[in-house]
Amino acid sequence: MRVVISIGGSILAPELDSNRVAAHAEVIESLAAEGCEVGLVVGGGGVARDYITAARDLGANEVQLDQLGIDVTRINARLLISALGSGVKPTPATDYDAAGDALRRGDISVMGGITPGQTTDAVAAAFAEYVGADLLVYATSTDGVYDADPNADPEAIKYTTMSPAELVDLIVPMSRDAGASAPVDILAAKLIERSGMRTVVLDGSEPSNVESAVLRGDHTGTDIIP
Amino acid sequence: MRVVISIGGSILAPELDSNRVAAHAEVIESLAAEGCEVGLVVGGGGVARDYITAARDLGANEVQLDQLGIDVTRINARLLISALGSGVKPTPATDYDAAGDALRRGDISVMGGITPGQTTDAVAAAFAEYVGADLLVYATSTDGVYDADPNADPEAIKYTTMSPAELVDLIVPMSRDAGASAPVDILAAKLIERSGMRTVVLDGSEPSNVESAVLRGDHTGTDIIP
Amino acid sequence: MRVVISIGGSILAPELDSNRVAAHAEVIESLAAEGCEVGLVVGGGGVARDYITAARDLGANEVQLDQLGIDVTRINARLLISALGSGVKPTPATDYDAAGDALRRGDISVMGGITPGQTTDAVAAAFAEYVGADLLVYATSTDGVYDADPNADPEAIKYTTMSPAELVDLIVPMSRDAGASAPVDILAAKLIERSGMRTVVLDGSEPSNVESAVLRGDHTGTDIIP
Amino acid sequence: MRVVISIGGSILAPELDSNRVAAHAEVIESLAAEGCEVGLVVGGGGVARDYITAARDLGANEVQLDQLGIDVTRINARLLISALGSGVKPTPATDYDAAGDALRRGDISVMGGITPGQTTDAVAAAFAEYVGADLLVYATSTDGVYDADPNADPEAIKYTTMSPAELVDLIVPMSRDAGASAPVDILAAKLIERSGMRTVVLDGSEPSNVESAVLRGDHTGTDIIP
Amino acid sequence: MRVVISIGGSILAPELDSNRVAAHAEVIESLAAEGCEVGLVVGGGGVARDYITAARDLGANEVQLDQLGIDVTRINARLLISALGSGVKPTPATDYDAAGDALRRGDISVMGGITPGQTTDAVAAAFAEYVGADLLVYATSTDGVYDADPNADPEAIKYTTMSPAELVDLIVPMSRDAGASAPVDILAAKLIERSGMRTVVLDGSEPSNVESAVLRGDHTGTDIIP
Amino acid sequence: MRVVISIGGSILAPELDSNRVAAHAEVIESLAAEGCEVGLVVGGGGVARDYITAARDLGANEVQLDQLGIDVTRINARLLISALGSGVKPTPATDYDAAGDALRRGDISVMGGITPGQTTDAVAAAFAEYVGADLLVYATSTDGVYDADPNADPEAIKYTTMSPAELVDLIVPMSRDAGASAPVDILAAKLIERSGMRTVVLDGSEPSNVESAVLRGDHTGTDIIP
Repeated sequence: MRVVISIGGSILAPELDSNRVAAHAEVIESLAAEGCEVGLVVGGGGVARDYITAARDLGANEVQLDQLGIDVTRINARLLISALGSGVKPTPATDYDAAGDALRRGDISVMGGITPGQTTDAVAAAFAEYVGADLLVYATSTDGVYDADPNADPEAIKYTTMSPAELVDLIVPMSRDAGASAPVDILAAKLIERSGMRTVVLDGSEPSNVESAVLRGDHTGTDIIP
Repeated sequence: MRVVISIGGSILAPELDSNRVAAHAEVIESLAAEGCEVGLVVGGGGVARDYITAARDLGANEVQLDQLGIDVTRINARLLISALGSGVKPTPATDYDAAGDALRRGDISVMGGITPGQTTDAVAAAFAEYVGADLLVYATSTDGVYDADPNADPEAIKYTTMSPAELVDLIVPMSRDAGASAPVDILAAKLIERSGMRTVVLDGSEPSNVESAVLRGDHTGTDIIP
Repeated sequence: MRVVISIGGSILAPELDSNRVAAHAEVIESLAAEGCEVGLVVGGGGVARDYITAARDLGANEVQLDQLGIDVTRINARLLISALGSGVKPTPATDYDAAGDALRRGDISVMGGITPGQTTDAVAAAFAEYVGADLLVYATSTDGVYDADPNADPEAIKYTTMSPAELVDLIVPMSRDAGASAPVDILAAKLIERSGMRTVVLDGSEPSNVESAVLRGDHTGTDIIP
Repeated sequence: MRVVISIGGSILAPELDSNRVAAHAEVIESLAAEGCEVGLVVGGGGVARDYITAARDLGANEVQLDQLGIDVTRINARLLISALGSGVKPTPATDYDAAGDALRRGDISVMGGITPGQTTDAVAAAFAEYVGADLLVYATSTDGVYDADPNADPEAIKYTTMSPAELVDLIVPMSRDAGASAPVDILAAKLIERSGMRTVVLDGSEPSNVESAVLRGDHTGTDIIP
Repeated sequence: MRVVISIGGSILAPELDSNRVAAHAEVIESLAAEGCEVGLVVGGGGVARDYITAARDLGANEVQLDQLGIDVTRINARLLISALGSGVKPTPATDYDAAGDALRRGDISVMGGITPGQTTDAVAAAFAEYVGADLLVYATSTDGVYDADPNADPEAIKYTTMSPAELVDLIVPMSRDAGASAPVDILAAKLIERSGMRTVVLDGSEPSNVESAVLRGDHTGTDIIP
Repeated sequence: MRVVISIGGSILAPELDSNRVAAHAEVIESLAAEGCEVGLVVGGGGVARDYITAARDLGANEVQLDQLGIDVTRINARLLISALGSGVKPTPATDYDAAGDALRRGDISVMGGITPGQTTDAVAAAFAEYVGADLLVYATSTDGVYDADPNADPEAIKYTTMSPAELVDLIVPMSRDAGASAPVDILAAKLIERSGMRTVVLDGSEPSNVESAVLRGDHTGTDIIP
């Protein structure tokens, strides 16, 4: 089974904590031990947010802010790599050819962001599409896809399953705003739709959720079923 | 005046025609002669379409198709560079630092696409944001922004002016579909909004339209005014 | 058996046609399935010619024209890669170390051109020399090496076999002119001679010709036997 | 006047604070406005320390820890770049040729670390040597060079001036230990000695100290005079 | 005046001798001081020959030998760069875009070899073509172009002037053999012919010969006049 | 067993001699045949010394001299690679990720220097630390670590064994001077100490000494035992 897992920055490194990273690494190694080919995309988390805040104060433009954020995702990728054993490509991939080639060679492959204007959500969807993954997992700070922002609306209802088209329909209007409340961004949603990729959005704050979702299809998040 | 011009592939090279490229190059050199700092982003056009069609038949995945398209945009960038005089950076830039640095050094700077999942529309908006352009011009095959697809709906009305927010409001629902009818894609629209960039969408099939729009604000397209 | 195959642009992509590319890919995969290690070098074909014509009209110098042609060969390499399965290195190699390393690792390796002033004929001969290939195949639009240009001289006689020295002797005087009628260029011929490489020049318009030549030594072209 | 300034991580970014970075940027721009050619090398600071601590817990080896630290210095370099105006090279240099070339072209040039096993102290000394700087300034958390660790020994006496040879003599025995108490590391000291570079070590917690030292030779740190 | 000078390895560094390199550097700086834009291509000389001999003994293939030779040409380029003042690009260019861009920016630009199978003779001709040089100078160990190998044939007659076509006619048959006796190689000759480049072949063992040839057209070698 | 071997330039190539290189290559292949994973770092030797002398005469700064030396180490690495069979990565690694990745993939991996200011002694220690080597071997021109410079002091006594801390204690005072007499440089010694790496310093002028030391622990040099 080939799986790409997006580990949001708020999940991997809300602040730098080796125990949390170690727990994610354990899950990944356990998946690999079960025979999974694993691609990973990690976000920026608290450190990215701090750099972006400081640089914005200093008058950086938005592209520079994105670039700083990408640089941090790559350091986070190195941090996760350092927690994985010898079966991981030691350098974070910066394009899909390199990321896919590592997977093809039997390595775990870890990416961060690629270019300004594109989130790691979208990178994960494109990586999954590129390698023809059987499953794409978003380990996020929300436990699935809701019909409204669950933090703002106590009536928000979580989808157990939905189609990629429903996901896009849901996210398109959310993408009008900054989009913080969307479970994945619009580009990611559209890549999921165009590739017909089986996708799971789940609560990644407990790393073992990823393991049970991948190995046993057992999770309490949202299944996006093409 | 600092201006970034997006020359769509269907405008620069619907098929390869040196006269057409020469006409665009003349406009660019004329802008530079008037003291403009000019950044350019070119699309893929007919050659990109042909490669993508062939590769799709061969079973390429969508990321590979995007990559082929990007490679063609860079060849188109080289073609346009070869038509410009000595004031142009000879190598197409592949990131914003390099593109902006060339502009900062007094060169005309030409980019193609950057990464799968991101159109040259969006690259142009990010490039403009990065260099703090005074104006962003989309030279497209449509002569402005309409409230509906003018090819499908004879009642479609063209906006003379609109705000970036109106542009995003218009494009968000269009982005649900493949989006072929949208004048620029959703990411580009949102970058325009976040940067508050003065933007013009105009008919680029007549290259001189770009010149009069940039130098004299004179055009029959749509002004997006922050 | 280790074989390097040069697939001329006029053979792979006189114009872009997925069936033709697929037929070549099938032959390559069939060779790999028979245990061959396969290196490939592809030419530019019709698209390269179109770009070069346009750029020459625009005043590009010859080095720029060569560079455009090389860029197209690399896109053609990507196109062929997209038609091959998982046993191919996903990125076209741009130097011999990378190309040879891929072969050494068990991958099919695809190159385009490398630098202005050097044809893909010569790249193929150098690649074959670098990896110590058992056989170098030129799949061209002519069905072998003739003692005169067969398109101009109806009396031209095809060599069934010849030595590398005879090949060089034949080509040196042809290299005086633009050399369009030479089956391979002078640098390629001299590389074949210096390396003592067994080489076949055959009609590549029918891809299966390559397969039978490689696997069974069965072809109607010219054998260059050191 | 050509000057290279090393801004220690504990000075630029003990934690991320845009005011502090802005204050350093102001000094740099003020030096440039006075006609100085300015090269900068920045350290890792608090963020580097946090990543290194986390990665050490995860079992990273020391070279990986150094690499993480270097990555952070480069992000800090980007942060400082974003606070400088248009006269700065937008990309942190990763070798001396690039750093020196930017300076030669009239740009402010900012570096971080280069390779594991080498501190930014040493990078600054090598950068200064490479560009033939008139002055090398270490903006550190200590206000000069002492004959003992001033934090540990209240009797420690600060040098007002010393020769490069005296600096090396002082630091060699300190380099036996982890060396945290040394004002600069042994490699930096030896590079200063071999190049005969005029050097100042001063308290950088107040950025204006750098300005008065460079422009007027006025500071309360240590002058290392060849 | 824009000039590209090829300084053969046997001229720049038959063995490593700083006086000889300094004498060439003086000429180059003197040309630059007279307003010439100067591009340089240097060969491998004695060190390259030694490495190639050793590697051939060790069983290296011809492409590896070429690669070793190229690496040495780049070190020679660095050596020459170190002898030139601040007006030279500090890094040897490895492609024509970079080399030409340096010249365009007002720098002296130094190249070595580029790729196996291509001599520095040919690189110089292509560089000259790329930048549209007014003059291409080959500073070689022979004092011009002869109708036969002057070392072997005491009757050999030197051409005072010749056309590019005559040069090619002369060299084509020489190119049958290893070609050591040809003043420039066949690819270089053909590039000179296709570009119609004014070219001088002269005795470079006395560096001042280059200066008088470039500045005053005064030399005792061969003028190749298109 | 994983072993990193530093072959000093004075050992591999005091002058270029294919027999000497072949003898070293034989030992390396023999170690690989015995199941060792072998990483190599080679020095510059006589050629580096010649370039550095010439460039110093020409006024090069020390960083440029270091860079020239590094370039030569990389050519020496290519020379050694050309003498090794198909089990070696064909390109010298220029960072630890690449070097370690090659080893991880089962290849012999060869490095030269990395950056100015850092010797190949130190590169070898860092490489060994990065890959968690079981043994680090310095094949030098001295037959072990002495308590004084054996060339200057006939009473100098060789250590049979010593601890890393003793090594550092010994080298720190030596590092005050140019350090030519130190068996390894101070940075290398400190890396050995921090990593607790088992290390052997032995006479490499007889290549078989390395083989017996690695395979059988049998040598007459110094064992540094953590």
